[in-house]
Amino acid sequence: MKLLRVGPAGAERPALLDPDGTLRDLSALVADVDGALLSDAGALDRVRAAAGAGVLPALDATGLRVGPPVARIGKVVCIGLNYFDHARETGAEPPAEPVVFLKAADTVVGPYDTVLVPRGSRKTDWEVELAVVIGRTARYLESAKDALSHVAGYAVGHDVSEREFQIERGGTWDKGKNCETFNPLGPWLVTADEVPDPQALRLRLWVNGVLRQDGSTADQIFPVGEVVRYVSHFMTLHPGDVVTTGTPAGVALGQPEPKPYLRAGDVVELEIDGLGRQRQELKDA
Amino acid sequence: MKLLRVGPAGAERPALLDPDGTLRDLSALVADVDGALLSDAGALDRVRAAAGAGVLPALDATGLRVGPPVARIGKVVCIGLNYFDHARETGAEPPAEPVVFLKAADTVVGPYDTVLVPRGSRKTDWEVELAVVIGRTARYLESAKDALSHVAGYAVGHDVSEREFQIERGGTWDKGKNCETFNPLGPWLVTADEVPDPQALRLRLWVNGVLRQDGSTADQIFPVGEVVRYVSHFMTLHPGDVVTTGTPAGVALGQPEPKPYLRAGDVVELEIDGLGRQRQELKDA
Repeated sequence: MKLLRVGPAGAERPALLDPDGTLRDLSALVADVDGALLSDAGALDRVRAAAGAGVLPALDATGLRVGPPVARIGKVVCIGLNYFDHARETGAEPPAEPVVFLKAADTVVGPYDTVLVPRGSRKTDWEVELAVVIGRTARYLESAKDALSHVAGYAVGHDVSEREFQIERGGTWDKGKNCETFNPLGPWLVTADEVPDPQALRLRLWVNGVLRQDGSTADQIFPVGEVVRYVSHFMTLHPGDVVTTGTPAGVALGQPEPKPYLRAGDVVELEIDGLGRQRQELKDA
Repeated sequence: MKLLRVGPAGAERPALLDPDGTLRDLSALVADVDGALLSDAGALDRVRAAAGAGVLPALDATGLRVGPPVARIGKVVCIGLNYFDHARETGAEPPAEPVVFLKAADTVVGPYDTVLVPRGSRKTDWEVELAVVIGRTARYLESAKDALSHVAGYAVGHDVSEREFQIERGGTWDKGKNCETFNPLGPWLVTADEVPDPQALRLRLWVNGVLRQDGSTADQIFPVGEVVRYVSHFMTLHPGDVVTTGTPAGVALGQPEPKPYLRAGDVVELEIDGLGRQRQELKDA
C-alpha cells in the first residue's frame, strides 16, 4: 500500500493512493498514519481489506497539499557515508561501522514544501536518501534479517545539509542537519511488502533540471537490515521512528569549485524507484 | 512554581509542589505539563492563582512515581564541553563556539527511574547538567537577554553517556548519548521567575555516596542565554524542547585509570541548588 497524509500542515488526514492513482480517504478507518497504526497489524489489514473491496471514498487531489507520510515521528536516525561512491567523493574512507547522527522530528516537512536556506548559509546541500519507517520496537536485534521484519515501509527522504554548519563550526554534524525544513519526507509510505528488495532501488536527484545524483541502494556499504540491526544496539527504535540510510555520490560538497550549493529560487527534485518523487523550491529563511 | 508530573510511566498527571512541600493535583486545571502549557501565559497564570488561593487538592505522595516534568518533549539539544574545568579534564581546548549534539526525546525518564547500562558497555558515565525548558518558539534570536525570555524554566538533567560508543565507535557523539533511559529529568520544572540567576547554581553529583562533581554554572563557557541564542541560529526551538547546557568536571572519563565507569548496582545522585535532587540505580539492559 501507498499511505500518505494530505491537507494543511498540522491538520493532515490519512489517505491511500490506489494502484490506479486514485486518492482515497482513510480518515473514517484510522486516526492517522503514525507509529500506532504502523505497529497494529490488524488495523493495517483492515485498511488493506477496505482498499481491496473498493469501499474507500475518493478524495479530490486538486490543490491538496501532501504532508509527510508519518505523523508524530519520534526521532530520525541518520546514517552518514553509507555509499561507496559518496564516501569517495567526500575524501573519506568507507567507515568500519555505520556513522550515526540525528535529525529532530520537527525538521520533517512534506515532499513539496518549501525548503529554507538558513540565514548565513553559504553551503546548503542536497542528499537523496532511502528512508525506513519502523513498525515494531527494535532493541538489541540479532540479525539483519530480523531487523527487516521491524520495518513498516519505505519513503523518499531528503537529508538537506548545511556543510559549513556541519563540518566547520565545531562539534558534531547535528549543527548542520537540523535547520528548519531540512527533512522533506514522502510523498508516500510504501509498505514493506511492496518493496521486495530494498537493496535494488535507483535513487536520483535533480537541481534545476540537472541530474546530480544517480545511485542505487545496491551500492550501500551497510544495507538496510544491517543498519537497523546496528542502530538497535545503541538506541531503541520505536514504531514511527525513521532511519535514513545515507546518500549516493553527487552532492554539492563533492563537486569541483565553485561548488554549486543551493540558493533561494533553486528547485530540487528527488525520486526513488517505486517510492515517488519530491519537488522543493528553495527560499531564504 | 515547581511543576511536576506524577504517576506510572506514560500515564503521569500534572502536579505542583507547594512552598510548604505539599503535592497538589493540577489535573482539573491543565491537561499536562507540556509545550502547550508552557507557551500559554494565561494558563500558567491560572495555575499560579489557584496555587496562591490554596484551592488545589492535595495529592498523597506516598509511593507515587515522579515522571519527567515535561510531557511530549520535541527534542533535547545538548551542549558539550561547556565548563572550563570539564574541557580541561577531557584534554580538550575550550571550544570557540558551542558544541551541539542531540538526544532523542525518548531517552527521557523520571528522576528516580532505573538507568540501564547498555549491553556491551564498558564506559557508561555520568554528567549532571542544568536543563533549560523552552516556553516560546526561538528562531534566529539576536541577544542572549532576549533568549532568556524564551526559557519557561529549569530542571536537573542527567546526560548519561557511553564514552566508547560516543568517541571510539566512529561517527558523531550521538551514538553514545541516546541509549534508552540515558536522560533522567526532574524532579521539577522550576519556572524561570524563581531562578533569578541561572549562572549562579551549584551542581553536584555523587556515585555510591562519593561526591564526584561539584561545580557551578558560573563556570560555564557559554551561559544559558548565549547557548539558547546560538542554538536558535541552527535549529528552531519549540515550546517543550529541552536544552541541556553541559557538565562540570568530575566525570569518570576525566579520572585516572582505572576509570570508575558505572555498573549495575551503582547509585547516582544529582542535585542543583533549588532544582531538587535525582537518584538512579543502575541495572543491566
